[in-house]
Amino acid sequence: MADVKNLSDISWKAFKTLSLAEKGSYFRGRHTLIAQQFTRSEIEELCTLATRIKRINKRRAGANFLKGLLSDKRAMLYFAQPSSRTYLSHNAACQILGLDTMDVRDQKTSSEVKGETPEDTIRTFSSYADMIIMRHPVGGFAERVAWMMAHTKREIPILNAGSGADQHPTQALLDIYTLQRSFEKIGGIDGKHVAFVGDLARGRTVRSLAWLLTLYKDMTLYFIAPDSLQIGQDILDQLDEAGTKYVVTEDFESVMPKADAIYMTRIQDEWDVDGDGSTTEASDYYIGAEHMDIIKDTTVILHPLPRRQEISTEIDNDPRAVYWRQMRNGMWIRAALILKTFGREDEVNRYYDDY
Amino acid sequence: MADVKNLSDISWKAFKTLSLAEKGSYFRGRHTLIAQQFTRSEIEELCTLATRIKRINKRRAGANFLKGLLSDKRAMLYFAQPSSRTYLSHNAACQILGLDTMDVRDQKTSSEVKGETPEDTIRTFSSYADMIIMRHPVGGFAERVAWMMAHTKREIPILNAGSGADQHPTQALLDIYTLQRSFEKIGGIDGKHVAFVGDLARGRTVRSLAWLLTLYKDMTLYFIAPDSLQIGQDILDQLDEAGTKYVVTEDFESVMPKADAIYMTRIQDEWDVDGDGSTTEASDYYIGAEHMDIIKDTTVILHPLPRRQEISTEIDNDPRAVYWRQMRNGMWIRAALILKTFGREDEVNRYYDDY
Amino acid sequence: MADVKNLSDISWKAFKTLSLAEKGSYFRGRHTLIAQQFTRSEIEELCTLATRIKRINKRRAGANFLKGLLSDKRAMLYFAQPSSRTYLSHNAACQILGLDTMDVRDQKTSSEVKGETPEDTIRTFSSYADMIIMRHPVGGFAERVAWMMAHTKREIPILNAGSGADQHPTQALLDIYTLQRSFEKIGGIDGKHVAFVGDLARGRTVRSLAWLLTLYKDMTLYFIAPDSLQIGQDILDQLDEAGTKYVVTEDFESVMPKADAIYMTRIQDEWDVDGDGSTTEASDYYIGAEHMDIIKDTTVILHPLPRRQEISTEIDNDPRAVYWRQMRNGMWIRAALILKTFGREDEVNRYYDDY
Repeated sequence: MADVKNLSDISWKAFKTLSLAEKGSYFRGRHTLIAQQFTRSEIEELCTLATRIKRINKRRAGANFLKGLLSDKRAMLYFAQPSSRTYLSHNAACQILGLDTMDVRDQKTSSEVKGETPEDTIRTFSSYADMIIMRHPVGGFAERVAWMMAHTKREIPILNAGSGADQHPTQALLDIYTLQRSFEKIGGIDGKHVAFVGDLARGRTVRSLAWLLTLYKDMTLYFIAPDSLQIGQDILDQLDEAGTKYVVTEDFESVMPKADAIYMTRIQDEWDVDGDGSTTEASDYYIGAEHMDIIKDTTVILHPLPRRQEISTEIDNDPRAVYWRQMRNGMWIRAALILKTFGREDEVNRYYDDY
Repeated sequence: MADVKNLSDISWKAFKTLSLAEKGSYFRGRHTLIAQQFTRSEIEELCTLATRIKRINKRRAGANFLKGLLSDKRAMLYFAQPSSRTYLSHNAACQILGLDTMDVRDQKTSSEVKGETPEDTIRTFSSYADMIIMRHPVGGFAERVAWMMAHTKREIPILNAGSGADQHPTQALLDIYTLQRSFEKIGGIDGKHVAFVGDLARGRTVRSLAWLLTLYKDMTLYFIAPDSLQIGQDILDQLDEAGTKYVVTEDFESVMPKADAIYMTRIQDEWDVDGDGSTTEASDYYIGAEHMDIIKDTTVILHPLPRRQEISTEIDNDPRAVYWRQMRNGMWIRAALILKTFGREDEVNRYYDDY
Repeated sequence: MADVKNLSDISWKAFKTLSLAEKGSYFRGRHTLIAQQFTRSEIEELCTLATRIKRINKRRAGANFLKGLLSDKRAMLYFAQPSSRTYLSHNAACQILGLDTMDVRDQKTSSEVKGETPEDTIRTFSSYADMIIMRHPVGGFAERVAWMMAHTKREIPILNAGSGADQHPTQALLDIYTLQRSFEKIGGIDGKHVAFVGDLARGRTVRSLAWLLTLYKDMTLYFIAPDSLQIGQDILDQLDEAGTKYVVTEDFESVMPKADAIYMTRIQDEWDVDGDGSTTEASDYYIGAEHMDIIKDTTVILHPLPRRQEISTEIDNDPRAVYWRQMRNGMWIRAALILKTFGREDEVNRYYDDY
C-alpha cells in the first residue's frame, strides 16, 4: 500500500518545497494532479477497470448500468485554457458514469471581471459540484486549488486536465493504457523499446509518460529530436535515478526497426512565447507509408493529437497506427479514474464477474 | 424498399460526381445529409413516429419511457456555424430520447489553432460519441465527413443540421411534417397549392422543401419573389422532371386566395457575400391582419423563422399562423429521425399500441 | 391564501402601471419575477422544502429519487448577461431534480444578428423547453416575457435570474434561507438586527432582501454606507409603510456589536455607467480578523459574492462566516422553487416523512 498523507495537515509554504514524489503522497486516492502520484499497481488497477467499463458499455443494459454508478454526483469542468479534445473526453467519461456535468469554458469568467480572486472563483465552482475537472494555463494552480479545498469544510476531488507546461496526468495514463492494451498479448509493457519523436522539449505528455515508464522493468527509451527540441535534463536525471535505460539521438530511421512503440509529437508553438518561430523549422521528423516495411509487425504508433505533418493520413488504417484508438482510450481510462476517485469501482467489478 | 448502398464501397472521387438521387442511396438509413435521400414512405413513417413521440411525451410516465430509449448513446453537436434555434431544437430532440449531448459551438476550435485538419477534428469528435449532428458553413463538408467515417473502423451516423448554402434536410422534414399535420383532416398533402414567398434565391429551406413536394401527387407550387430573388432554374428543372406543376410570379395577392399553404421567408443577407445589400430593398412581401379575410379558413402560414417584417405579429394568435407550431414540430421530427437512425423506432410503436 | 390573478386577463399597458405588490399577484404560483411576489408563508414553505431536498440528497438513494422528480421536463437557461455563479447555481438546482437543461449564454445570439425581435427569440427558446430561467440586462424584460407567454397557447414558467438593476428574486430568497438556517436555534428571523454594509445604492440584492425582511416581526435594519452609496429613499419608504425599524448611518463599528447578521456588499462598478469611478474610493468598509471579538458569537456574516477587499479571507473558516454556505444554499432554495413551480413538492414531503 502506497503512502497516503492528508493535505489539510500541511501548510502551503511547506507543501510547495516538496518533491513530486512527496507531493504525490498527499494527492493519492483523492486528487489527480501529477503523473508522479501513481504507483504501478494503481495504474494496473485503472487499466483493468477501464477495460471492464469499455466492455460493459458495449451492451445497452451494461451502458445503462454504468450510468447509474455516479448519477448522484455532479462534476464541474473548468477549462480556463481551451481544449475541445480534452474537454470532450472528460465530459464523455462523466456521461458514461451518469455524472452530471456543468462547464465554464470561457477564458475570462464574469467573476474575474468583478475583481474576484482565482481561489474564490474555484471555491464558488466547487460549491455546486462534487468534483472539479480543471485545465489552467498557470503551472501549479491545480495543486494550489487542491490544497485550498482541503482547508475548507467541503473538500472535493480535483482532477488536473492539464496545467501549465508541465503536468497532464490523465494524458500519461491514457498513453500507458494504450501501451498496455497494445502489448497485452506480447508480454506487457516490461522490456519494451519506446521511441519519443519530435518536440520533446515542450510537450508535457512526453515528460509525464517518460516518468511513468520508469515504473516498468527493463525499458529502453529513445528520445529522437533536434538539439533545440530535445528532452529536458531533469527527465534524464529521473530516468538515471530510476535505472531506466535511454538513448538520446537525432537519428529516427536507425531506431525505427527496434522500437516497439513510436510516440510521435507535434511542434508545440503555443508555448513559443518569444513568437519568433525560431524552432519551428527544426522538426521534420515524419512517419508515413514508406516506413511501414521498416517497423515491426507488432510496433504501435502513438500520437497525443492533434497532428500536423508528422504522421501521414495514408497510414491511418494500418492496424499499427493506434493513435485514434489511443484517443478513445482516454475516455475509458478517465471514466475508470473518476469512478475510482469516488470509490465505487467494486460495483463495476461485481457486475463484470456476473456478466 | 428503396435502394441502399454502402459508402465504404466507393471512392471520394467517384462519389463526388454522383447525382443527388444517387448520393441519397448511399446515405439512406444511416446518415441524414440531403433532402433528396428521403422517399415518401420514409417521410410518412417519420411523421407517424414524430406524432407518437409527441403524444407519449405528454404524460410523465411516457416522457420517462422515451428517456430510456437512447440513454446508452451520446451525440456530439458540432456547430461551426452558429444557430441557437437549430442547436436547441436538436439538443431538445436528443434530451427527449435520453441521448446525452456534448457540444462544440465555437467557430474556431482550439484544434484548428493547433493546425489540425477539419477531417481530423471531426474524427476526434466522433471518438467520443455515437452520432454527430453538425452544422458547417462549407457546402458538402458533412458529406465528406460521412464518407470519411465510412472508411474508418468506427463509422457513426452523421446528421446534417445545415451545410453551406444548399442543404438543411431536417428543416425540409419539419416543413413537410407541419404540412402533413395541418392537412391531416383535409385529405393530406396531395393536391394542395403551396406558395413560397420572399427570398427564394438564397434560402436553402425553400429549395429542399420544393424538392420534397415532388414526392406528392397533383401539387401546385407558386414561387412569388422579385426577379432578383426568384427560385433557381435547377429547382424548376427538378420540378419539370418530376412532373410537378408550378407558377413563377411576382404577384402575391392574386395567389393568396388559392394557396393552401403560404411559406414566407426572410431576406438571407447572411449570404450576401458582396455585402452591397443591393437586393435587400426588393422583398416587401408581407402578410398581416388585412390579409386574413383573403386567405382560406384552412390555409396555413409557415415561416422557417427568424422573421423580420414579412409577417405581422398581429396574426400570431390566428389558428392559421402555424409557424410557432412548425418550430416545435422540428423537435419532434428530429427526435423521430434520431430514434430511427439508431433503429429503435419499434419500441415507440409497441409502447404506443399499449398506450 | 394569497391573491392569485391571471396574466392573460390583463393588457401590457395596464399591467405596466401596477404596483410591485399588485404585479406579484399576477406572478404568484407560476412565474418567479420579483421579490415582492412572495408571502411569508410561501417563503417558509420554500425554506422547509429546500432543507428537505438537501437532506434527502445526502444519501445516494435519496439523490437518485430527487433526479426522478422532474426528469420529464426541460429548462432553458438564457443568460444574456454573463454570470457564471448564477448560471451554475440554477443549473445545479435543475440537475438535482433531473431536469434537463439547455443554455444560451452568448450576449449576441445568432438570431439577433438575423434581425429577430427579443420577444421572438424568447418565444423560440420557449418552444423547446418547459421553463425559462433568464438573466437579462434590461429591467422589466423578464416581466414582459412572462406576460407575452401568458398570451400564447403554450405558457411556460419564467424564472428571473436577475434583470436590470433592480430585481434578483432568487438571490433574496437564498439570503432569507441563510438567515432562517442561521437563526433556527435562536428563535428564527423575527426580532433580529440586520446590518447592510457597503454599496447599498446599486446592489439589487440589498434592495430585494430589505423588502423581504418587512415580512418579519420586530426587525431592525441598519444601512451602513457613505452618503453617495446609501440605500434609496424608495426602500426606506417601503420600510416605513411596513412599520419596519431602520437606522441609516456611516458608522460600521458602532453597529457591529449589535448586529445579528452583517450583510457585506462590494462596489457594483458594473453599474457605474458614467465610468468615472467617482464613487469607487468611497467604500472602505471592511470586516476581518480584528473584528471577530467585537461581533457576537451568534452573529453571521453574509455576502452575495464575489467579494473584493471587504471581507478578509482570514475569517473564511470562522463558523460565523456563512457566505460560502450561503452560496450553496442558493442551489437548494432554487431547487425548492423550481420543484414548487411544477407543483411536485408533495413528492418530496412524502419521501421525507418515510425517510
